[in-house]
Amino acid sequence: MKVFDGIKGVSVLGSTGSIGRNTLEVIRKHPQRFKVISLAAGRNIRLLKEQIDEFRPAFVSVADKETALELKKAVSAPVEIGVGIEGATLAATYEGVDITLSAISGAAGLVPTMAAVKAGIDIALANKETLVLAGSLVMEEAAKRGVKILPVDSEHSAVFQSLSGHRSEDVKRIILTASGGPFLNSPIERLETVTREEALKHPKWNMGEKISIDSATLINKGLEVIEARWLFDVPPEKISVIIHPQSIVHSMVEYKDSSIVAQMSCPDMKGPIAYALAYPERIESGTPPLNLFNLKLDFIEPDFKRFPCLGLAFDALKSGGTTPTVLNAADEVAVGMFLKKRLHFTGIYKIIAEVMSKYSPREITSIEDVLEADRWARETALSLINESSPGLKA
Amino acid sequence: MKVFDGIKGVSVLGSTGSIGRNTLEVIRKHPQRFKVISLAAGRNIRLLKEQIDEFRPAFVSVADKETALELKKAVSAPVEIGVGIEGATLAATYEGVDITLSAISGAAGLVPTMAAVKAGIDIALANKETLVLAGSLVMEEAAKRGVKILPVDSEHSAVFQSLSGHRSEDVKRIILTASGGPFLNSPIERLETVTREEALKHPKWNMGEKISIDSATLINKGLEVIEARWLFDVPPEKISVIIHPQSIVHSMVEYKDSSIVAQMSCPDMKGPIAYALAYPERIESGTPPLNLFNLKLDFIEPDFKRFPCLGLAFDALKSGGTTPTVLNAADEVAVGMFLKKRLHFTGIYKIIAEVMSKYSPREITSIEDVLEADRWARETALSLINESSPGLKA
Repeated sequence: MKVFDGIKGVSVLGSTGSIGRNTLEVIRKHPQRFKVISLAAGRNIRLLKEQIDEFRPAFVSVADKETALELKKAVSAPVEIGVGIEGATLAATYEGVDITLSAISGAAGLVPTMAAVKAGIDIALANKETLVLAGSLVMEEAAKRGVKILPVDSEHSAVFQSLSGHRSEDVKRIILTASGGPFLNSPIERLETVTREEALKHPKWNMGEKISIDSATLINKGLEVIEARWLFDVPPEKISVIIHPQSIVHSMVEYKDSSIVAQMSCPDMKGPIAYALAYPERIESGTPPLNLFNLKLDFIEPDFKRFPCLGLAFDALKSGGTTPTVLNAADEVAVGMFLKKRLHFTGIYKIIAEVMSKYSPREITSIEDVLEADRWARETALSLINESSPGLKA
Repeated sequence: MKVFDGIKGVSVLGSTGSIGRNTLEVIRKHPQRFKVISLAAGRNIRLLKEQIDEFRPAFVSVADKETALELKKAVSAPVEIGVGIEGATLAATYEGVDITLSAISGAAGLVPTMAAVKAGIDIALANKETLVLAGSLVMEEAAKRGVKILPVDSEHSAVFQSLSGHRSEDVKRIILTASGGPFLNSPIERLETVTREEALKHPKWNMGEKISIDSATLINKGLEVIEARWLFDVPPEKISVIIHPQSIVHSMVEYKDSSIVAQMSCPDMKGPIAYALAYPERIESGTPPLNLFNLKLDFIEPDFKRFPCLGLAFDALKSGGTTPTVLNAADEVAVGMFLKKRLHFTGIYKIIAEVMSKYSPREITSIEDVLEADRWARETALSLINESSPGLKA
């Protein structure tokens, strides 16, 4: 329900992360257009307090009770505080929210996002796991309730903009671009011994840790392929990936007359965020204009030997059902272990592949099926890492 | 009026030219979709006869009586034959025509195209002079009658595809790409002495003689700027030109959130032709798919010293009224003289600039105003060339 006339009420899930901070930058530029109703964050109290002081939300949620108590002491503004998934869900569906920007990292984003869809609230979707895990359920529910799922990933925003105004039956394929990450040109044999710091150093985008590692393995692009399959209702064989190191062309759509429509901009998340928040209008986003002069745009075929996780994602999509959930859960565990220096970089692929090989896919009939597959894959990945041969461990 | 149920009746004006031949190639691929009702050509009887034998139009028109008599002897199929502008106009508006592809070269395309608009027939527009000369009149008439003006120029087709589905009030600027022609990198002092053959050798597009020279001076891009101003109803200051030697990105639209939407394909006219003919559907065009791998895309600021005709076109657009007509007419005369080796390449600019400097712009209230300005500019250009100093003559 709308409480502010003419102003969109916004819930920001993951407000202290990279997407969340960019979202609040966009909102700051347009106080006549947007009002922050609620925020959900993790444990970054210092930044969350600043956000509360500036945007005066009615409700915020944090990771746990301890953080909530600490926050209560820190803030003077009157704000209701919730915790955990229940808190995030309440934030996503709070009274007055017209659009929920879903940018909690990982599988944890699914439940609050689905709750917002069920409440008839439009979604600006940065949490790709929502569709990776439960694409069919979420899109069905959204269609039933007339809820818009507006992409915030730069790639999906580009596809969305390149499909706009064209007939979906004329699409030959969607081409997602990938920067190729920090190891595009490293010798393959070096990948086993790359450090946490090397893997985190993304050449084009400044992002959170998990997504930076996922960009280095290219599994991030694989998750985006799965996301695109549901968001745009296209079969897997109509989705390709192409390496584009400059990250200027954010994605493309090829039509059956061999015409390609593409979207370009400086690599800056404020553009896609602003487009999703204000859709169908465009507003000043804060993304600087692209200087076309002396631009160099390269496109390279992805090497599935260098980036075997990308192949796993296509396999998971083809296998269907709960398999993408298993892929994603195993990846979250493996990346976590890599970040803790308990797994080699190349061990990420090995763990996911092994977890997937042990799994028998199931149909998805409810969120419960998804959450169960998620639990199973996490446990299996963890025990594989704990029991694994020294070759996997860093 | 439609005579073939479910099939679009097509009139092809300029059927033996480059665009005309490409159009018939597209139509050949889709006999269940298109039927050629009429053709208009010049003096290429051999090719026109072949086209009549294959496509069996009800009516054709040629340049003059002599050609008509010759054609009558050559063809056995029953076909009505007309001549001159009246013949082309009859072709454009013949019974059963649903869409007229207007690809007669130069100012001669205006009258038949306008007649088709007045008859309520959709236009696939390759003849840019129609809008350069009488943009306000033609677009007004088209709006009044619900006639679609669908661009066939690759640049305008690209803009059309990049605007589709987006709000026109969000457009920051239209960016027309130009290959830069054969003299993009020649020393400027060499331009005075370039030969007819050098100027005709376009690096990317295989086109007619007039448009090839216009691409070498870049006045073609200037005419396209004027065309875009009317076609998309954007003020001149929102249209830019950028050199893109590979001719892969056919044009772009920049929006106010710094997002750029672009259209790409192999340089091949069948794509835009098919899009215009079948709009809003896309059909197999015969344009080969673009191979994105190892593509190099460069964008360079245009040098108005090297290409002063481009500046003249912007001046003409700003001056308004009948000035673009004068620019175009002087260019047609000057290019004709260059092709006859009676004018230096750099003389083309000098003649147009001098004709324009002698002209006092007038408002356009009817096609008559346009035709009068056209006549005046042709006479003035001719006499300037005939009386000119030896420096201008080749």
